[in-house]
Amino acid sequence: MFDAIAARGEAAAAVSDAGWLQAMLDAEAALARALATAGVISGEEAEAIAGACVAERFDAAAIAAAAGGAGNPVVPLKAALTEAVDGPAAGHVHRGATSQDILDTAAMLVAARALDPLLDDLLAARSAAGELARAHRDTPMAGRTLLQQAVPVTFGLKAAGWMAGLEDSRRWLNELRVERLAAQLGGAAGTLASLGEAGPRVAEAYAEALGLPEPVLPWHTLRGRIGELASALAVTSGAVAKVARDVVLLSQTEVAEVREARGGGSSTMPHKRNPVAAICALACAQQAPGLAATLLGAMAQEHERAAGSWHAEWRPLGELLRSTGSAVAWLRESLEDLEADPERMRANLDATGGRLMAERVSVEIGGPEAERALEAADFRAAVAALVGEERAAELLDPAGYLGSAGALVDRAVDFYDREG
Amino acid sequence: MFDAIAARGEAAAAVSDAGWLQAMLDAEAALARALATAGVISGEEAEAIAGACVAERFDAAAIAAAAGGAGNPVVPLKAALTEAVDGPAAGHVHRGATSQDILDTAAMLVAARALDPLLDDLLAARSAAGELARAHRDTPMAGRTLLQQAVPVTFGLKAAGWMAGLEDSRRWLNELRVERLAAQLGGAAGTLASLGEAGPRVAEAYAEALGLPEPVLPWHTLRGRIGELASALAVTSGAVAKVARDVVLLSQTEVAEVREARGGGSSTMPHKRNPVAAICALACAQQAPGLAATLLGAMAQEHERAAGSWHAEWRPLGELLRSTGSAVAWLRESLEDLEADPERMRANLDATGGRLMAERVSVEIGGPEAERALEAADFRAAVAALVGEERAAELLDPAGYLGSAGALVDRAVDFYDREG
Amino acid sequence: MFDAIAARGEAAAAVSDAGWLQAMLDAEAALARALATAGVISGEEAEAIAGACVAERFDAAAIAAAAGGAGNPVVPLKAALTEAVDGPAAGHVHRGATSQDILDTAAMLVAARALDPLLDDLLAARSAAGELARAHRDTPMAGRTLLQQAVPVTFGLKAAGWMAGLEDSRRWLNELRVERLAAQLGGAAGTLASLGEAGPRVAEAYAEALGLPEPVLPWHTLRGRIGELASALAVTSGAVAKVARDVVLLSQTEVAEVREARGGGSSTMPHKRNPVAAICALACAQQAPGLAATLLGAMAQEHERAAGSWHAEWRPLGELLRSTGSAVAWLRESLEDLEADPERMRANLDATGGRLMAERVSVEIGGPEAERALEAADFRAAVAALVGEERAAELLDPAGYLGSAGALVDRAVDFYDREG
Amino acid sequence: MFDAIAARGEAAAAVSDAGWLQAMLDAEAALARALATAGVISGEEAEAIAGACVAERFDAAAIAAAAGGAGNPVVPLKAALTEAVDGPAAGHVHRGATSQDILDTAAMLVAARALDPLLDDLLAARSAAGELARAHRDTPMAGRTLLQQAVPVTFGLKAAGWMAGLEDSRRWLNELRVERLAAQLGGAAGTLASLGEAGPRVAEAYAEALGLPEPVLPWHTLRGRIGELASALAVTSGAVAKVARDVVLLSQTEVAEVREARGGGSSTMPHKRNPVAAICALACAQQAPGLAATLLGAMAQEHERAAGSWHAEWRPLGELLRSTGSAVAWLRESLEDLEADPERMRANLDATGGRLMAERVSVEIGGPEAERALEAADFRAAVAALVGEERAAELLDPAGYLGSAGALVDRAVDFYDREG
Repeated sequence: MFDAIAARGEAAAAVSDAGWLQAMLDAEAALARALATAGVISGEEAEAIAGACVAERFDAAAIAAAAGGAGNPVVPLKAALTEAVDGPAAGHVHRGATSQDILDTAAMLVAARALDPLLDDLLAARSAAGELARAHRDTPMAGRTLLQQAVPVTFGLKAAGWMAGLEDSRRWLNELRVERLAAQLGGAAGTLASLGEAGPRVAEAYAEALGLPEPVLPWHTLRGRIGELASALAVTSGAVAKVARDVVLLSQTEVAEVREARGGGSSTMPHKRNPVAAICALACAQQAPGLAATLLGAMAQEHERAAGSWHAEWRPLGELLRSTGSAVAWLRESLEDLEADPERMRANLDATGGRLMAERVSVEIGGPEAERALEAADFRAAVAALVGEERAAELLDPAGYLGSAGALVDRAVDFYDREG
Repeated sequence: MFDAIAARGEAAAAVSDAGWLQAMLDAEAALARALATAGVISGEEAEAIAGACVAERFDAAAIAAAAGGAGNPVVPLKAALTEAVDGPAAGHVHRGATSQDILDTAAMLVAARALDPLLDDLLAARSAAGELARAHRDTPMAGRTLLQQAVPVTFGLKAAGWMAGLEDSRRWLNELRVERLAAQLGGAAGTLASLGEAGPRVAEAYAEALGLPEPVLPWHTLRGRIGELASALAVTSGAVAKVARDVVLLSQTEVAEVREARGGGSSTMPHKRNPVAAICALACAQQAPGLAATLLGAMAQEHERAAGSWHAEWRPLGELLRSTGSAVAWLRESLEDLEADPERMRANLDATGGRLMAERVSVEIGGPEAERALEAADFRAAVAALVGEERAAELLDPAGYLGSAGALVDRAVDFYDREG
Repeated sequence: MFDAIAARGEAAAAVSDAGWLQAMLDAEAALARALATAGVISGEEAEAIAGACVAERFDAAAIAAAAGGAGNPVVPLKAALTEAVDGPAAGHVHRGATSQDILDTAAMLVAARALDPLLDDLLAARSAAGELARAHRDTPMAGRTLLQQAVPVTFGLKAAGWMAGLEDSRRWLNELRVERLAAQLGGAAGTLASLGEAGPRVAEAYAEALGLPEPVLPWHTLRGRIGELASALAVTSGAVAKVARDVVLLSQTEVAEVREARGGGSSTMPHKRNPVAAICALACAQQAPGLAATLLGAMAQEHERAAGSWHAEWRPLGELLRSTGSAVAWLRESLEDLEADPERMRANLDATGGRLMAERVSVEIGGPEAERALEAADFRAAVAALVGEERAAELLDPAGYLGSAGALVDRAVDFYDREG
Repeated sequence: MFDAIAARGEAAAAVSDAGWLQAMLDAEAALARALATAGVISGEEAEAIAGACVAERFDAAAIAAAAGGAGNPVVPLKAALTEAVDGPAAGHVHRGATSQDILDTAAMLVAARALDPLLDDLLAARSAAGELARAHRDTPMAGRTLLQQAVPVTFGLKAAGWMAGLEDSRRWLNELRVERLAAQLGGAAGTLASLGEAGPRVAEAYAEALGLPEPVLPWHTLRGRIGELASALAVTSGAVAKVARDVVLLSQTEVAEVREARGGGSSTMPHKRNPVAAICALACAQQAPGLAATLLGAMAQEHERAAGSWHAEWRPLGELLRSTGSAVAWLRESLEDLEADPERMRANLDATGGRLMAERVSVEIGGPEAERALEAADFRAAVAALVGEERAAELLDPAGYLGSAGALVDRAVDFYDREG
């Protein structure tokens, strides 16, 4: 009932039942081909197996239902696949592997396939932020600390920060997708014993067939990869949440400095411009810390296969890919759709009667006179009385107190455009 | 792909899309009848609306898909329901309510419907533990602290503890189900303004029609109820996890004091007696802390409807009901199916050559002689040398050093049978 | 460096090293007296022990430092206490108990002593909220959903909600303090074996001496009590966070409907009225979900003493008492100090040119004409054109569309004053 | 009272009050020198300030106590430092900076100083694991899946896995320490406005003076760095927990394959060999997921300084550095101290009457005869009846079915020795 909100974007498809089924079959197919490469079975046998590894040929619901008996879905999958393969090749299905090999490898494939669209959406979101940074490089707005107006900033600088946060997490996720989503093959307890001498060659060929890195050791109870993936997704969600929260706050009726062009109204309250995309992005991003904590807590996996902590990963890993993917997809919509209102920004800069410039007055005039002016009921008049109308107007012009905002925007845009 | 493991038991059905849809419709039906009770609309109009509130008449997938636009599924549901109602009654659909009223009330109904089978399974699980406590009231086994054998206990005392932990959480959940799952009706911002004078009467009748308590105030951004529900589910999961972990540890090859009768083997490793039910119970129970943390963290809901934290509850609330329900269902299977092996318990008591009785020897003999005996290579012989064979045999008999174990079992069984 | 922020209020003192030390000594003293009550030792021996149980006589730092060797501080405490007791009574120190008995009981005492001031602060905070509810029963302000102005509410209704959330959690915490913080005495593995026949009488007298309830069973690895305490603290933190977040949002420069009278400024930005107390309350409250999750996750305690999960409770339990206590203390300061600005509330109600009354216009005028008015550039004029100036003024008066706000405030105030 | 357990190792010192105070002063000193480098103040003024930045000169407790008023400790620190500086230089203390600049930079210094000893302990722990891997390359032991004996592995392979998990996390932490702990300087809202033209030069010199990288943008509300640090610490804790859990399980009375040489006993239960170091490592490591979740959840920081989520980081960041440092220190003690018992490993391999070799018998004999043998009461005899005594002995020898265990150990040792 909530998938349109909580499972936005394409990442969700990869973690569906069909996605998991195909990923497990891909692992079985890669295993068969690796066995052939290593000379354990013939190429024909391998292709007979690999040719059967097509999700549509299997009853995903039946396999899922049968997973309860053995405690994982690979046991019924192996049975179904064996039945689906004709001739003697059937006897080689799953050879040398244990259930965890197939499921862990499938998890890596599922993660990779969820990350691909997620990374696309993240790139689009950060690019949209970059566009805002460029377009509003010199648009003054109130800088707010502790939700109080403090000194002027630019909307470009704020947007450049959004871009930086998103892009840093994108680069990490991308690196992790390429380097850390490794194949898993160890056999019953990680020694590859049932493959005899051929073990290492099979393991190498398996990784190659999958297009995944081969790990130094089978990683069945070394869950750092899962922990890192969970972390990078959670940090990405955190970067999304920062941006989305800013958008929601800037969209408030009383602030109204940005709005989502397609933001939802209400039939009876048409004046509302609910920033639906940012709100949903926030809601999805909030899922990440708890899910990541569950995965990090499950790293204490016993001996050669954990009694519970392994099984505990499946749901939260899928949920975390889905919720982060959804958060990113929503944020992309929000940012690609965001309309800034420089006039309202300017008007809000005047909300404190020039006191937003108090720091400048302190620094540039200083002394007890400046302090008295800061406490005057009419700050502008008090400053003008001190330094004259013209100088006061200059001093109190927010656009004249933007410090290095423009230079910082330029630097961020250059940096994130250059290194990709 | 993992529902047979992660969504065991009947609680999962209540949190399905169909479960949510019917619960939202039930809220709309109750609202219509409450409007009639308060004289705002006629009884015929109310029944025209209520009669249409049948999940099967609606396209759940279409409503779910349309939820993305407005940020919640009630907006498309209201439209679909209005269309499904004939005549002028259609104009009264959802009258006086806001989306959150319907969704929050539906959440309470979903929770109640998930809790009912969960509470049944929990009662069965605690009863199975109680049976074990009674049956093994006087069966000695090694008490283990820090996973080291310490002094003897009885299996009955251990099982009585399991029962107590489960039953305490059952009573809490049951109380909460009755008292805290309250109806929600407040209108656009909690004042019931669009109902005019009739507001309070409608709200009262609404709760009555739903069979839920009426709250003192509309609780749209007062999320204590959600926090309490999350807490009680997480504590239940914790109580399950304690039992399941004990079962898994007692099932170890080297300990082998209990086994699940239907415990899974492996085609190539038939000697294994994997305690699948306890393992899956543990895996499900491990989901709870992270999910509860997400719900507790979402309590900081802004003003009259939160911008994200409300939407952030929907998935984890469903997941938590599902995973706790699943943990309880698995534990019930494990305990109803558990075979204890008193002989193996007895054999393990001898594993330390009588040193398990060191505390008793210390207390009952004491002094430097006892201390020397404790350090002797052959502890039994050393004790016999001190006090004679007969007294040594008595002193070193684990069955003679069970303290108040039996009395405690009796007390727990009485207490938990008596108060229900 | 952060205690003035993160450990505000009196609760922190109870969880200090001195607080823990005295609580452990209180448990040892109660044990000695219980042994005397049960006739195991003499009253003189008991008093010799109890008389030595004064924290100031011990070197807390030395005991803490020695805790590393045994894995808990009771082992060195027992040694130090034995040394501090003169005569043969020294031989009865800690008799019948295990380290966990003393530490778990001390944890309950520490919790009770932290809860007492916390409950006082919570009562004061909810009373301050109640005062605001009464004082502003009829003060109109904008109701905000998704941070957009929606329809009018009253500040009294908002404050009544704050009161309700705080008071519900206070009652739960209070009940739990009285009923669930039970004594723990089980001996080495929960059988009280070393006390022989006297076990149950000692356990009963021990609880009585402590002024704590006696549990049905020793609860050494039944951690429901810890889980419930963690939950109630986390829900309290959540209730605090809701209020604090509202205060922070209402304090924004652009909203400015409330301010903390002592709210911090800044030397160079004196116009800022940082709602420091509410901000710190939020920061403290945010600690709770993670800490509670750690405690809930630690409930899976093995056999008769957990190998790690028991030790894992000590820090987060202390931190959670401290951070929740601090959150409550800060919120009390914020609310006792809060100045509302009805004029600004009124001004903000006009921010949307009367469109905040759109729902009412929809309901009370309705039809295509009302819809057109809602889209008009000048909404007020459009409504006046429809219904005349006088009726338009009435329709668009926020004070006239407050629904049951006043009645709800009265009900909440009555309810929470009555039942306590 | 729990620091000897929960704050083991040297990392804790860095996060003490003294550690924070010096780190904040170091930031102020670096700022003064950077101002001089950029020509804003003179070198003499800079040195007058920097010279005063010595923690011992300040009353840490007084500064900490005063932090409550302003909501952070930099405000009173700045006042105290200004007072401590003689002459006109005092007027330049903190110039151009805001409290958050100093505190965020100090947090990076604190983290770096905590990571240094933590990384040393982690290197030592992984080296100890590597030693065990080398020494026991060919020591057979039971491989255990779901805590059931499955097929043989070697203790060397298990230890190589421990090494790999620890070393992967060490490399990540080390990289992060060098690259991601960046200086923070942005002024009141990130524009460096009060420094005028000199802003960028000051920021560059500031980072250089601190020996920290300069970020592309001020990162005051871009908390990815904190999120990454939290993640890497949590993954490290997870890697520690895996090893510690294995050690605890292998130390069980009934398994007894390893023991901590200094493992704690008990005065009345001297037969116990509690693996205290591994237990404490587990307890400390369990803190990480909840603390990391709090930090990840605090990433949604509003505008130019967060109203609560910034303040919410201070405690959990310190706690996470402390608890992870403690977990690593304990694990180092456990592993440097670990005695393996190859004879007991061998004896346990026989616990299932040869059935641990069932997979091999299945694979190498196969067919219905092998299946019948697997079900025979006397498995060894049944196999001997099939293939003769000599071949049966060979087939059932665990040392002959270790697959690629040795090669994998070699590969892991080579890999982790080579790349450092």
